[in-house]
Amino acid sequence: MIFETIVTTTNADGSPHVAPFGVREWDGMVLIAPFRPSASLDNLLRGRCAVLNLTDDVRIFAGSLTGRRDWPVQHAERIDGWVLEGALAHRELELAEIRDDATRPELLFRVVHERMYAPFRGFNRAQAAVIEASVLVSRLHLLPAEKIDAELKYLAIAIEKTAGERELQAWGWLMEKIENFRAEQAGSNQA
Amino acid sequence: MIFETIVTTTNADGSPHVAPFGVREWDGMVLIAPFRPSASLDNLLRGRCAVLNLTDDVRIFAGSLTGRRDWPVQHAERIDGWVLEGALAHRELELAEIRDDATRPELLFRVVHERMYAPFRGFNRAQAAVIEASVLVSRLHLLPAEKIDAELKYLAIAIEKTAGERELQAWGWLMEKIENFRAEQAGSNQA
Repeated sequence: MIFETIVTTTNADGSPHVAPFGVREWDGMVLIAPFRPSASLDNLLRGRCAVLNLTDDVRIFAGSLTGRRDWPVQHAERIDGWVLEGALAHRELELAEIRDDATRPELLFRVVHERMYAPFRGFNRAQAAVIEASVLVSRLHLLPAEKIDAELKYLAIAIEKTAGERELQAWGWLMEKIENFRAEQAGSNQA
Repeated sequence: MIFETIVTTTNADGSPHVAPFGVREWDGMVLIAPFRPSASLDNLLRGRCAVLNLTDDVRIFAGSLTGRRDWPVQHAERIDGWVLEGALAHRELELAEIRDDATRPELLFRVVHERMYAPFRGFNRAQAAVIEASVLVSRLHLLPAEKIDAELKYLAIAIEKTAGERELQAWGWLMEKIENFRAEQAGSNQA
């Protein structure tokens, strides 16, 4: 089972690096598998720790695909790390095992601390639509435009019916990214 | 903003009634708008209270559409009501205002008690797919079969990639319901 979360790691200069990750969990362990090369992987291997942020703020997921990675954080409690402000809960992780791989090493972490801030508010279809649209945006160069448009049309129904301000903002960023991608493609085809 | 939740009410004989509701929330108030006629509406008007269960167990959503409403509960703490076992959080509600309507009255509740049990685990795309498929199943008689099939094909990707046991079970119940509906339709077309 894969959960979409925000992983914060610490850059070499001590600043936070915020990135979305689909993680697996079992028995107090968390598996994170970052692609090579990536800032998250560098940070995880150097610092050997991370914070798993459980947040329903979909702007952070859409933001990471659209150049918006500067979110407010505070210091973690047990490890040298950063917790996203506004997370519903967070877990502090220490690296336990590395299963190396040329494209996508698997890093297994032990949960050393956990805190709950606010309850789950229920499923929101617009939040799920932003997560799905984020997946589409991350594969813009791989998927046919018609397939993307058909799926966006379906997802837009949930946005119209159930979104709040954060979801509308995140959706707007993703739609802008798609427009820009297509405008660039059209430009390079003409060139 | 609408959140998909499970509302438990108390039947005239004291037993629990479990039903999914999309609710709106603001400033410690919760708006529930049940259709007429419904057991939930009868119970809410008679008992003037309810429990809002925040759960990520999608079997309960899919179950309510497929005749599976018998989920374990325990007594609420401040009101005469029932809390779903395994909920991540629950809120106890007292009726504050009724905006009557011939088809769908709006019932406004005050949150009088709240408890968190377990943290949000992150977004799971398979859970969201079960919620979307539940919406489709609730509109089987309204939507063209091709539209349903196209959307299920898309949702099935998230099920294959990210589901756990609960999500697979809930998905199976919904797919069985669609098959049965179509078999019945085919039968009545022949008759």
